[in-house]
Amino acid sequence: MKQKGILTVVSGFSGAGKGTLMKNLVQRYEEYALSISATTRNPREGEVHGKDYFFKTKEEFEKMIDKEELIEYANYVDNYYGTPRDYVESQLCEGKDVILEIEMIGALKVKEKYPDTLLLFVTPPNVEELKKRLIGRGTESIEVIRSRLNRGKDEAKVMNQYDYLIVNDNLDDTVQKMHQIIQNEHLRCSRNEEFIQCIMEDLKGDLL
Amino acid sequence: MKQKGILTVVSGFSGAGKGTLMKNLVQRYEEYALSISATTRNPREGEVHGKDYFFKTKEEFEKMIDKEELIEYANYVDNYYGTPRDYVESQLCEGKDVILEIEMIGALKVKEKYPDTLLLFVTPPNVEELKKRLIGRGTESIEVIRSRLNRGKDEAKVMNQYDYLIVNDNLDDTVQKMHQIIQNEHLRCSRNEEFIQCIMEDLKGDLL
Repeated sequence: MKQKGILTVVSGFSGAGKGTLMKNLVQRYEEYALSISATTRNPREGEVHGKDYFFKTKEEFEKMIDKEELIEYANYVDNYYGTPRDYVESQLCEGKDVILEIEMIGALKVKEKYPDTLLLFVTPPNVEELKKRLIGRGTESIEVIRSRLNRGKDEAKVMNQYDYLIVNDNLDDTVQKMHQIIQNEHLRCSRNEEFIQCIMEDLKGDLL
Repeated sequence: MKQKGILTVVSGFSGAGKGTLMKNLVQRYEEYALSISATTRNPREGEVHGKDYFFKTKEEFEKMIDKEELIEYANYVDNYYGTPRDYVESQLCEGKDVILEIEMIGALKVKEKYPDTLLLFVTPPNVEELKKRLIGRGTESIEVIRSRLNRGKDEAKVMNQYDYLIVNDNLDDTVQKMHQIIQNEHLRCSRNEEFIQCIMEDLKGDLL
């Protein structure tokens, strides 16, 4: 009796290390499939269609919106980004645990459509560490860092709507912790209705 | 910042192995405290007051009921059994994860009073195995086994109100699984409001 996969959405402060965590999770355990986003932005060097993104024209993307082929989508800097429903649902049906990385507004939209979505919020151990990591990257201007930290203020307000808080203090430990949380989710009674039905059926007959 | 302990209630079919699981959990990990029940039944040989049970007279027990000193109680075969609130709450405040073994009606009462209680339901992999274990004990008459299996029918009906289903197929694995489920519970956003508040406070000030 193969169980359906768990849909997990990962959000968190910019600089919390979501990307690295997810890459490691998928490399280390075979249970997972990373969702692939659709976007209208141009491919960057080395990006592969169907692996990094599904690259779409504006017209194609808007057709997907109309046909409700996206679980959620958003528009940033004049480009669309969204999560194609087909890929996610087919992976879940095959029993894969699907991981999406989405910012918080999108995450809460997904939870609304799929109430059994698992919402994980990734955070560094404290704000000092968050600043250090953002500055440490050395790739961003002070203005960009400031605007990200400011966005953090808004994000913190909805943290309590997430299921689990993942404090990313050590990569290896945190990957293992995420794995355990997602795998334990398979043991929820609400995800084992078939098993419970079987037990009830078996108890119905003549017992001894 | 020491977090409050998690209150966990373990129920399950008679013969599912709850007792052995809990004993092993407490022996293997130091995070846990087993709740000690109060009862009006007479001590059996070797049973120690304050370790196996708190032995009470009927009058003492009824006074505890009146003073709401019990989280839940029930009356079986003319004897009271109940869970003293004091012991449980003091252990939780010290950060211990407290484990109660209670049948299902009591378990749901506890959840009503303490909504953040974790409810675990222990079951053998299937009904065949359940029968085998009950018969295998060799200590019970066929009538007792039959009545337990019959009670199982009622119990199965409320299984879906539990949080997690613990399929007890292998003692060591199952103890570890229980441990992970309870420890992951500490990572729930709803149990980390203080941490979230701290992050929000730190993000309020001048950031850079």
